[in-house]
Amino acid sequence: MEEPGTGEGPATAAVLVIGDEILSGRTQDTNTRYIADYLAEIGVDLREARVVPDVEDEIVAALNALRARYTYVFTTGGIGPTHDDITADAVARAFGVAIGEDPRAIAMLRERFTEEELNPARRRMARIPEGAELVRNGASKAPGFWIGNVIVMAGVPVIMQSMMDTVGPQLRSGARVLAETVEAGAIPEGGYAMKLEEIAKAYPGVSIGSYPHFSADGVRNQIVLRSRDADGLAAAAKDVRGLLSDLVKQAP
Amino acid sequence: MEEPGTGEGPATAAVLVIGDEILSGRTQDTNTRYIADYLAEIGVDLREARVVPDVEDEIVAALNALRARYTYVFTTGGIGPTHDDITADAVARAFGVAIGEDPRAIAMLRERFTEEELNPARRRMARIPEGAELVRNGASKAPGFWIGNVIVMAGVPVIMQSMMDTVGPQLRSGARVLAETVEAGAIPEGGYAMKLEEIAKAYPGVSIGSYPHFSADGVRNQIVLRSRDADGLAAAAKDVRGLLSDLVKQAP
Repeated sequence: MEEPGTGEGPATAAVLVIGDEILSGRTQDTNTRYIADYLAEIGVDLREARVVPDVEDEIVAALNALRARYTYVFTTGGIGPTHDDITADAVARAFGVAIGEDPRAIAMLRERFTEEELNPARRRMARIPEGAELVRNGASKAPGFWIGNVIVMAGVPVIMQSMMDTVGPQLRSGARVLAETVEAGAIPEGGYAMKLEEIAKAYPGVSIGSYPHFSADGVRNQIVLRSRDADGLAAAAKDVRGLLSDLVKQAP
Repeated sequence: MEEPGTGEGPATAAVLVIGDEILSGRTQDTNTRYIADYLAEIGVDLREARVVPDVEDEIVAALNALRARYTYVFTTGGIGPTHDDITADAVARAFGVAIGEDPRAIAMLRERFTEEELNPARRRMARIPEGAELVRNGASKAPGFWIGNVIVMAGVPVIMQSMMDTVGPQLRSGARVLAETVEAGAIPEGGYAMKLEEIAKAYPGVSIGSYPHFSADGVRNQIVLRSRDADGLAAAAKDVRGLLSDLVKQAP
């Protein structure tokens, strides 16, 4: 088992959402955003997210591509008791390790199920790849697991969130990316884009994005600045506010 | 330019969401689900979705991986007038073609902007890779484009949706995947999983998924059956309803 969470610089991460129900349009994925928020809070950079169907080859390929690139990979979905729950087997295959019933996981399931209830389907939830650590969850007892740099979680949001709370304190945290949002309101993007680019170039350590949205009052724009450098962020934000204020003054 | 929309069997698709704001947790992506629903309606199979940051190398790599695998790739985000809008350049690089100001796109922008308003930033929105067809949008006039099998759309949902309406009729549609949802209610997944697997094996042309969700009344389960074969779907759904009804009768 590799030792996750070592290395230089901020830890990076990817999310791998496993589930036909997302790709069919049946279900709106909200787990990616939850994990994105969670990781942002502890200073881990989420760099990529993918959604793949419940197809073992696809899960294995995506997992191997992502775990080679990022400090952590968080998967959601496919660890329940039904035949379409194939994530654990796919993870074992990706790592080239055996998979079998884990007595520690069976013990957790016994906290919830009687011996009679613990039928072969429910015992499937105790199939854990060799060498993995279990990730306890308070909501349903069926554990997720952590192998190498891959953290395998449930797809049901409340269960996934419980697992995230279990693994969170063990992740390599870092300086948080600080963000400041400047409201541009009805000032059009095309009116400030050129000067905004100059500001972006003047502060290479600050990432600056411009985000329009349509509201009942028409288009409204926000400029979001993000950086780990508080002073640079404050200086850039001040320049952005100055730019917008100049534009408002110039308006006829 | 490749000819999109040819080939055997159902057309396939991937969505590539381009945007730091999704990965930072700032914005909940809803475009993927909208496109998933849209494609399901016209019988195109969405097979994968990815989110990448506003980083040209990442966009190019993801685009080249996806366009080689699927009939269509739909991108959202990064085609506005600000410096962080780099999708068009990335697409040109992925296809190895030149990019420049497209007179047809300028003409569309003139429907909305006066000559004075059409500054260099707004003209950026007319930068289109060579050989691409424009994708008109009624909401903002700034076009998306279609090159090879890649359809490049805005990130703002109302604009993306307008572009989807423009391209939709030109996509290679096929037989819709039919879906039937059977409510399992409070019957636990672990109680029906083994028999559900038998049904799934008996109907290889029907994809069967089991989806728990937590509600105010506790865990509730739904079984979703999907197939292009209406008769197979109906027969499998009947078996699933029979299975659940037997379980309810057996309950003490």
